[in-house]
Amino acid sequence: MAKKTAKLKLIPLGGLNEIGKNMMAIEYKEDIMLIDCGMSFPEDEMLGIDIVIPDITYLIKNKDKVRGIVLTHGHEDHIGALPYVLKKLNLPIYGTKLTLGLVENKLKEHKLSGSVHMQVVKPGDIAKLGEFKVEFMRTSHSIADAVCLAIHTTVGTIVHTGDFKVDFTPIDGEPIDLHRLAELGQKGVLLLMADSTNVERPGYTMSERTVGTTFENIFRNAQKRIIVATFASNVHRVQQIINAAYKFNRKVSFSGRSMVNVVNVAMELGYLNVPSDMLIDMNDIDRYLDHEIVVVTTGSQGEPMSALSRIAASEHKKLEIQPGDMVIISATPIPGNEKTVAKVVNQLFEKGANVIYEALADVHVSGHACQEELKLIHSLVRPQYFIPVHGEHRHLKQHAKLAESMGTPPENIFTLENGQVVEISKESAKISGNVTAGNILVDGLGVGDVGNIVLRDRKHLSEDGLMVVVVTITKENGQVIAGPDIISRGFVYVRESEDLMDEARTVVKNALQNCQGNNIREWAVLKSAIKDSLRDFLYAKTKRSPMILPIIMEV
Amino acid sequence: MAKKTAKLKLIPLGGLNEIGKNMMAIEYKEDIMLIDCGMSFPEDEMLGIDIVIPDITYLIKNKDKVRGIVLTHGHEDHIGALPYVLKKLNLPIYGTKLTLGLVENKLKEHKLSGSVHMQVVKPGDIAKLGEFKVEFMRTSHSIADAVCLAIHTTVGTIVHTGDFKVDFTPIDGEPIDLHRLAELGQKGVLLLMADSTNVERPGYTMSERTVGTTFENIFRNAQKRIIVATFASNVHRVQQIINAAYKFNRKVSFSGRSMVNVVNVAMELGYLNVPSDMLIDMNDIDRYLDHEIVVVTTGSQGEPMSALSRIAASEHKKLEIQPGDMVIISATPIPGNEKTVAKVVNQLFEKGANVIYEALADVHVSGHACQEELKLIHSLVRPQYFIPVHGEHRHLKQHAKLAESMGTPPENIFTLENGQVVEISKESAKISGNVTAGNILVDGLGVGDVGNIVLRDRKHLSEDGLMVVVVTITKENGQVIAGPDIISRGFVYVRESEDLMDEARTVVKNALQNCQGNNIREWAVLKSAIKDSLRDFLYAKTKRSPMILPIIMEV
Repeated sequence: MAKKTAKLKLIPLGGLNEIGKNMMAIEYKEDIMLIDCGMSFPEDEMLGIDIVIPDITYLIKNKDKVRGIVLTHGHEDHIGALPYVLKKLNLPIYGTKLTLGLVENKLKEHKLSGSVHMQVVKPGDIAKLGEFKVEFMRTSHSIADAVCLAIHTTVGTIVHTGDFKVDFTPIDGEPIDLHRLAELGQKGVLLLMADSTNVERPGYTMSERTVGTTFENIFRNAQKRIIVATFASNVHRVQQIINAAYKFNRKVSFSGRSMVNVVNVAMELGYLNVPSDMLIDMNDIDRYLDHEIVVVTTGSQGEPMSALSRIAASEHKKLEIQPGDMVIISATPIPGNEKTVAKVVNQLFEKGANVIYEALADVHVSGHACQEELKLIHSLVRPQYFIPVHGEHRHLKQHAKLAESMGTPPENIFTLENGQVVEISKESAKISGNVTAGNILVDGLGVGDVGNIVLRDRKHLSEDGLMVVVVTITKENGQVIAGPDIISRGFVYVRESEDLMDEARTVVKNALQNCQGNNIREWAVLKSAIKDSLRDFLYAKTKRSPMILPIIMEV
Repeated sequence: MAKKTAKLKLIPLGGLNEIGKNMMAIEYKEDIMLIDCGMSFPEDEMLGIDIVIPDITYLIKNKDKVRGIVLTHGHEDHIGALPYVLKKLNLPIYGTKLTLGLVENKLKEHKLSGSVHMQVVKPGDIAKLGEFKVEFMRTSHSIADAVCLAIHTTVGTIVHTGDFKVDFTPIDGEPIDLHRLAELGQKGVLLLMADSTNVERPGYTMSERTVGTTFENIFRNAQKRIIVATFASNVHRVQQIINAAYKFNRKVSFSGRSMVNVVNVAMELGYLNVPSDMLIDMNDIDRYLDHEIVVVTTGSQGEPMSALSRIAASEHKKLEIQPGDMVIISATPIPGNEKTVAKVVNQLFEKGANVIYEALADVHVSGHACQEELKLIHSLVRPQYFIPVHGEHRHLKQHAKLAESMGTPPENIFTLENGQVVEISKESAKISGNVTAGNILVDGLGVGDVGNIVLRDRKHLSEDGLMVVVVTITKENGQVIAGPDIISRGFVYVRESEDLMDEARTVVKNALQNCQGNNIREWAVLKSAIKDSLRDFLYAKTKRSPMILPIIMEV
């Protein structure tokens, strides 16, 4: 009998059937390596949750095997879970200079700085993580210094695109390394894992450079101050704003905590070039004439506490909108943020600003590859197997279809769920099982202490509020000696509903008297009687069902 | 001195700086007439609210003057507040046959049927409401039987577009009455009020007919069942689905309460033509072969309880998705619904359905006019004054800009807020004041009983849950004789946080002992002591701030 050959295991721990929380584990013999370690934003039903991170039970179980985390770029959905994961598993981290600069910032906030081994890599480098040889290749994305990966293993080579687009004219002059991808394809690639975010969009994503042209046209005609909101991490976008400001003799100031942080990191590391006499402090903008000012700010998603939202609501300490100010929102709303962005736009218009956003001008391009770019990668890499990553199920499904249209046999394409394990050898591949995977909810300092019951209660409370009913009874004979007292919150405005509250008290009194008449003393039964009678009464009166909390005190 | 001439007053009570809740009052001497009476959906922060309706304080104050409500079409954002308004003001209603058919349905639900005077009108008719002569003109929209209005007054003629698009090839063969609009423009129009919804979009909205072509192409290649989700009220869309089904020999069944209701009304009134042998009951669909079935369903917005959402979640009693079923979502997500629609699409894909939605094919067109259509109306009507209506502030602002580009002097354009009054005479127009206007929140049976305090509490509860602290003290000396008991909901999963709860109890005990040591007996002070100590403790431990409800019982 032939000796059983070792197989590669691909284990997505996040990023599949969802946007964000990207994390892929690759296992071979005694080694596990990780690609990215991202967070995601809570779904609407995750009330009160701050962020969501991957469940790493499988990695903790196999902690002796895990060799490190390779990062493709510095976006939150690729690095945001690092502080939480590193507290459980102290792993070396590999990434490019800017990526690790952003990670360092994050670790400082979590007081983890200095305790983590960080290895700076650059395109062309190869890092060894156990049996894995990870080669870094230049790519383009809506953040500088993004890479894609070729992971060389005994079984074969794996190409992982990270998040990417094909920008032939990137701002930093360093386009995606199509030559190396072609070469790898020529030699033979076992498996491709590729970004699916924009797979529904036909054609090509426009070059980042086109936004610069739009900026110039807008800046040329602006008479007053210009305020541009964009993602802080989109260093190339920020550079283009600076370039346009330079061209039209405007000074630049940065507003918003993350904008200032990221810009400082990017300037220190040489990713952002701002002539020193152009840079002014937000405190000094009033010393200049209107047509000499550009403010670059956070808040392009309408985030309630961001600088732009505060500007729009007249709550910003250093900047008040004047009629004629030009505000450019250089971003597209992430699904779910449409209404918050629209609110900010409306507020800005109301204050007399001239607001330019994606619906009105080409002030944004995506960072993700559209269909024709994806086809280019598939045709260069020509993989034996394909796993679509980074996307909701509909995206993965469309990407599988696209791969099939490019010649990958359907049986070689795996549309997975987080936690599903694919085993690949040189001869064959199959889904071989499942490991624990899922969402860990972070709420304040709590990691994983908010579960379904808590969320269900929050939802109930958010819709109908609550009513607390307190009654004090005697230990001897269960006589009611105080209450029932009723307190409500989030239900009705009490002062205008005194009659309703009085009636509610009577309903509870009657229910309790009924119990006493029947000699019922069990607390559970008393509580049920209170709950049921009150619920029926309130529903009949208001068609609402507040949470009812009966509390019995015994003295 | 010249006699003071009576002026027209335009008073928007809803629909400005918002999407929905459309209601415009026009006042002249002793008469007030209303255009539309719509509802809107609650904003994200209006937790637990069902719908929002206009504040009609001004109308109630002037109830002797109000002559009636003229309806432009049967969408909820134009008729949805009728049951609530009619309970306060019994007014005659004017509308086309289908519009009033839909109103009748609504009044039945609210047990108001028969008590309201409804006057059916048709294009070309003129209704007299006091001094106002209201002329109805055919227009196109994403519902059949929509009209625009010419309101003839002593001061001049007002044109109100309602919601509209310019469809040169509408399904019912009756396009917008451009001839009459041109004639009115020729004679002189005092004021134009026009739909601003799509003013950000360049070009033209495509004809409804183009969707029919897409349906035919999709139906032609479908092998299994076809399920189409669309708005029930989009009767022309439903007709096109039926036409395509007819062409490819499929039977049609309707699913979802509002779909069945609206289809029945539309068939009865002759707006929908379904050969009787094509129509089958949902209970019978399994009697037919897969390629013989089309199901038309509600749920195109991913509404959680809708038929399509239940189908996607395998919770529909009569229809279970089979691999290969074709699902067409013939609608675009209303801003705010993107994520719920995406969720349904993902679930359908997971069940093996072939899902077609707007991102993938032209299965939807808008019901609102884009820039070129708006320009056409402006150029035909040539109004002296212009008020943009139906849109958020950004839309109104863009529409004002468009009107200016079409030759209306900026001082003749009024970008208003709800409640602002514009007075117009033959010679001049100005903003003359304000009346009460705003949002009335409907929650269950409660109309207006949920206000800011209740909403703020719901928000607080939804994010961090609550903690109830109960303590029983004696009347004589304020000794604690029972408790403190602590109950939490929506905060942490209690079983895994017993230590935290124990510590919390100790914190409260200490706070109370402290008060007793200082001989403090006032309840307000005791409650503050409990609240403050517990809040500080919990925030330090969890970085969360649940609502804290201290309750003191005295025996």
